[in-house]
Amino acid sequence: MRNHLFSRVLLAAFALAPLAAAKGPDEGMWLFNNPPAKQLKERYGFDVSAPWLEHVQKSAVRVSTGGSGSIVSADGLVMTNHHVASDILAKLSSKERNLLETGFYAPNVGDELKCPDLHLDVLWQIVDVTDKVEGAAAGKSTAEAGAARRKAMTQLEDEGKKATGMHCEVVTLYQGGRYHQYFYKRFEDIRLVFAPESGIAFYGGDNDNFEYPRYCLDVTFFRIYENGQPYKPEHYLRWSPSGAAANDLVFVAGHPGSTQRLNTVAHLEYLRDVSVPSVLMRLMRQEIWLQGYSGKSAEHARQAKDDLFGVQNSRKVYVGRMAGLLDPAILDAKRAEEKALRDAVNANPEWKQKWGDAWAQVERAQSTAREIAKRYSAIGGGGIALGADMAGFAATIVRLADELQKPSGERLREYGDAALTQVYQRLYSPAPIYPEFEVMRLESALSMMAEQLGATDPVVVAALAGKSPRARAAECIYGSKLIDIEERRKLAEGGAAAVASSNDPLIALVKTLDPHSRALRKRYEDEVQSAEREAYSKIAAARFAVQGEGVYPDATFTLRLSYGAIKGYSDGEREIPPFTDFAGVYAKAQERAGEAAYALPQTWKSAQPAVAANTAFNHVSTCDIIGGNSGSPVVNRAGEVVGLIFDGNIQSLVGNYGYSDEQARAVSVDSRALLTALEQVYKAERIATELKKSIPAR
Amino acid sequence: MRNHLFSRVLLAAFALAPLAAAKGPDEGMWLFNNPPAKQLKERYGFDVSAPWLEHVQKSAVRVSTGGSGSIVSADGLVMTNHHVASDILAKLSSKERNLLETGFYAPNVGDELKCPDLHLDVLWQIVDVTDKVEGAAAGKSTAEAGAARRKAMTQLEDEGKKATGMHCEVVTLYQGGRYHQYFYKRFEDIRLVFAPESGIAFYGGDNDNFEYPRYCLDVTFFRIYENGQPYKPEHYLRWSPSGAAANDLVFVAGHPGSTQRLNTVAHLEYLRDVSVPSVLMRLMRQEIWLQGYSGKSAEHARQAKDDLFGVQNSRKVYVGRMAGLLDPAILDAKRAEEKALRDAVNANPEWKQKWGDAWAQVERAQSTAREIAKRYSAIGGGGIALGADMAGFAATIVRLADELQKPSGERLREYGDAALTQVYQRLYSPAPIYPEFEVMRLESALSMMAEQLGATDPVVVAALAGKSPRARAAECIYGSKLIDIEERRKLAEGGAAAVASSNDPLIALVKTLDPHSRALRKRYEDEVQSAEREAYSKIAAARFAVQGEGVYPDATFTLRLSYGAIKGYSDGEREIPPFTDFAGVYAKAQERAGEAAYALPQTWKSAQPAVAANTAFNHVSTCDIIGGNSGSPVVNRAGEVVGLIFDGNIQSLVGNYGYSDEQARAVSVDSRALLTALEQVYKAERIATELKKSIPAR
Repeated sequence: MRNHLFSRVLLAAFALAPLAAAKGPDEGMWLFNNPPAKQLKERYGFDVSAPWLEHVQKSAVRVSTGGSGSIVSADGLVMTNHHVASDILAKLSSKERNLLETGFYAPNVGDELKCPDLHLDVLWQIVDVTDKVEGAAAGKSTAEAGAARRKAMTQLEDEGKKATGMHCEVVTLYQGGRYHQYFYKRFEDIRLVFAPESGIAFYGGDNDNFEYPRYCLDVTFFRIYENGQPYKPEHYLRWSPSGAAANDLVFVAGHPGSTQRLNTVAHLEYLRDVSVPSVLMRLMRQEIWLQGYSGKSAEHARQAKDDLFGVQNSRKVYVGRMAGLLDPAILDAKRAEEKALRDAVNANPEWKQKWGDAWAQVERAQSTAREIAKRYSAIGGGGIALGADMAGFAATIVRLADELQKPSGERLREYGDAALTQVYQRLYSPAPIYPEFEVMRLESALSMMAEQLGATDPVVVAALAGKSPRARAAECIYGSKLIDIEERRKLAEGGAAAVASSNDPLIALVKTLDPHSRALRKRYEDEVQSAEREAYSKIAAARFAVQGEGVYPDATFTLRLSYGAIKGYSDGEREIPPFTDFAGVYAKAQERAGEAAYALPQTWKSAQPAVAANTAFNHVSTCDIIGGNSGSPVVNRAGEVVGLIFDGNIQSLVGNYGYSDEQARAVSVDSRALLTALEQVYKAERIATELKKSIPAR
Repeated sequence: MRNHLFSRVLLAAFALAPLAAAKGPDEGMWLFNNPPAKQLKERYGFDVSAPWLEHVQKSAVRVSTGGSGSIVSADGLVMTNHHVASDILAKLSSKERNLLETGFYAPNVGDELKCPDLHLDVLWQIVDVTDKVEGAAAGKSTAEAGAARRKAMTQLEDEGKKATGMHCEVVTLYQGGRYHQYFYKRFEDIRLVFAPESGIAFYGGDNDNFEYPRYCLDVTFFRIYENGQPYKPEHYLRWSPSGAAANDLVFVAGHPGSTQRLNTVAHLEYLRDVSVPSVLMRLMRQEIWLQGYSGKSAEHARQAKDDLFGVQNSRKVYVGRMAGLLDPAILDAKRAEEKALRDAVNANPEWKQKWGDAWAQVERAQSTAREIAKRYSAIGGGGIALGADMAGFAATIVRLADELQKPSGERLREYGDAALTQVYQRLYSPAPIYPEFEVMRLESALSMMAEQLGATDPVVVAALAGKSPRARAAECIYGSKLIDIEERRKLAEGGAAAVASSNDPLIALVKTLDPHSRALRKRYEDEVQSAEREAYSKIAAARFAVQGEGVYPDATFTLRLSYGAIKGYSDGEREIPPFTDFAGVYAKAQERAGEAAYALPQTWKSAQPAVAANTAFNHVSTCDIIGGNSGSPVVNRAGEVVGLIFDGNIQSLVGNYGYSDEQARAVSVDSRALLTALEQVYKAERIATELKKSIPAR
């Protein structure tokens, strides 16, 4: 299974900024149950009301491919990014029908295409369960406390689902400072309505990714169905009649994936010296392998395209993170802030007694992390991820067989009862599988294992079984029956006995790695994660005591509210205005003629005479976002759609560690570009009309 | 300075084959003073004569960009590959005149373009100096013996040059089993005569590199000048009137860069577990950075093109090497052969006493190599290579200042008197320098240093001087005056005093790294290289005793003779015939329409009606070659040109470790394609006539 979550769409916001409490202008990825009411009032004179918050919250959706979206019509139309949808578009494609290249439009509701492997979640309710989770851990050793917390979380999820029928997740906030139980409405019948060609959705390709000015129509529309009918939502976002103007206050409601702004310095140093370089190396390696595969033919390129986009996108993100962590100004600012907080704690004997050792505990946890990192990642991490989809199926089948023998609360977290729907959705996915592509990805993972650990490492010896990575990958993929959904079902339903007697080579490969992965995962959970939870819980308590409760937690791929203004910036050489327009994309196509990434689709060439050249295309705002926010709606004070987040600029890429509004910007498709393209370029009248229907009479 | 030597053009030949004595068919990269006379007689009924050898030897040239070539006319015309010449073509190009893209043809002799940074060497004489080198080392400790050998080699080179006026190099053969003194005629006035567009020279781009069937016109013609006039050589290769046919015996005379076929198993395991993975990681990283730079504009792409080609080429080579080393069949065969040799040694008490400990000594040397490898490569190795040309100038200036204070024999080997011409040629190169490109390359090197060693490593702290890699690289490049040749000259001529008082930031950066680089180099030379020389000298003696003198040494970028037959192969799925033809390239262009790598230049489109479709284009032979052989002539029994080596197929990429003729093939441009293209496609009558003039009357 490809690890799409957070590996794509990574948007961000710049550092150098204060840790912790949002002192910076427009900073923060705020919880809907702890919104920045004071800041909004002071900075923008905006009174954020409970009904406004509920309306926006229940109009926002989380997309299972790892992005965000919103419901934008009374008939369950959902707007997200093309690059959030591209995994689904690829799965709906074949050699003969390449939806990534041609785009898609269902002229009638009956033409809308059912999507494999996709579900959407709408956040319905939040309950603070910190007492329950921490209560379960009380009085236990660090490792035991960690296990008890995990068990309590799984049980709360199972109970929540049982009690409400809703999908339920317990979210760890402030790295362990708080635990909130999130209840979601989950929708699984999702159909494709409209997608443009990737040529305009991702205009400028990898070159222009994270750059600005931009000209991308990075949108896809889905529709939620319930009982075979378009869903009639209680809440959906209306379309703004006029769009936004420079300096307007705007909001982003979406699901930022992860940030490390509240990490201790020792924890950031681990990221800088070990984790980020290692991820970066893996990404560059994957990119090269995927490019090599893509070069073989147009069909090979089609098969690899979505993976290649994801990897290139993440690589840019990690280059940005690496640069941020190697910028002494950022770490120095973190050091100063950490010192201030620790000084405040140490100055109060009671606080010192309760929390004073927390930073050292995080530091100790990092030394274990440093010790196991290379080995853990080389064998595919805690989930035995070996690149190929079929290897992912094997890992799921082998683990399901073991885990289902235990009570839900004692299983690996991702196999708890509440999570099983998603496990089975992936395992039984009807998405196409390309054996040659599978072999390449597995070969790459096996070769990397050997390159990282050395060929005589016992795990490598066992994994390769006396063969070269190429031969072993071919043997495992071509010799496996897991390409067949029914075969996967038979093994998964057959449980431990079926797995024990299976002679499928991929099952055998996973069984070889499973004990090593579990052992390292146990060390990680016991000595790193549990210690971090314990220590960060103290640091969070210290932070609240010193700085008050107006601190937003790091991003966790859960719903957050950001705010800011539509605003240009200076890149050091020139002033970049906040809006681009349609004239700009036609000029760019001329300027970069002959380069594939800048070629306009025929639809756009034909439409040039029809569209108004000064129609707004993309815009930037100071909203504080990051990867996972892709597809988030940008709304105005009235909660109306004025844009669609799809990227951050290059200056935003260190936003993992902090925020600054000097240069970092969130990049959106303007709502006027969306409507104009639907009407003038694609003649998608049905969708345009559906969107415009919601424009409130004034 | 870019490390072009061996980093490009890497051709090869498959393994699984016997180590040492060439028992395999057509195996071997033979010394001209120890040719495979017996094999040629037995396998092909060919009597190799001393005059034949001398003629071919003195017609072959070594190209200073890291490839091979040959003199092919009475007026000093030199034939080599486009990709051997591409570094020079790039240096002769500007934003306005892109010779890589457009190609070049001098219609008159007066239009031929003087080339910067290029010299050609013709091997004139070989003298065995093993006794002198080993004599100097006798009775000394390992490290002292190593230093004594290096000193003796430098002194022999200086004396040789002084005595003959020729360029002189002492070559280490059999990893220390023999030392031969090579005398070269060196030519430094080289002019560009003809180059095709890179679109046809490198047809199919990185996709098709190392693939077959192929359609590349990978040729460039230079001319040697002496005293401002075209050179009249004593020897040059005649053009074959008819070209070669399937199964014909052919020869390759060229300069294979390096192989590791005689390495012990422990030494190969070091390559497998440490060295090759590390080089591969660096190459993939460089490739990504270069692609990112290239994406910014057509001009950026032009600046980076030659580097990008070189890196992609090497990356393919190293992927092949890695795959070979991870193929247990290859290492198992090496183990078996090593055991047979060691058993034979141990069975003879005298041999055991003299040579029995050699394998353990190599193994000990590898453990030091494992210990220092990461650090050594992260700081740019023994030559402080930091990616940017200007950083290379700084390294040369700093080292020259120190080294010139010592007697030639005590200097770092590359600063011995005999080597200085080349040092100054590079330092005072008039080739264009692009500051933005320099910043990118230096930033990449500095960032990698931090990623590899961690940001708190004292060397990293010193190198970054409290700045981010980006800021530090910009400060060093934009703050340096080394872009100016006169500034380089002033500092180099000013010696230690000028360097000491310089405040050039690049000089300062190099000074920071210099002691670390020197310390690691000393450890490498004392504990790894010297130990290897000592041990391999014993292993070579054992090999000669057990297997006889009919063993060819590993490649050393010195002139070698390979032989074989024009012959197709099966790739497991289909039979691949030995020749491609002009019809094939036109068919391929149609099949891959729309992909830039397969677009034919306009010259070729226009010529289609004129050229005979069945004209041979490329061909393959079983000749045993590897990177460095690019540009080598392929000659027939009569010593006439029938082809031009430019590549090996993908199955040849493990040839570093051994040879097999089952699938591995050397890939050449057919001599008929060369003449047809000159006449029909490029109307380069002057050159075609010059080549045809040499066709002997029969």
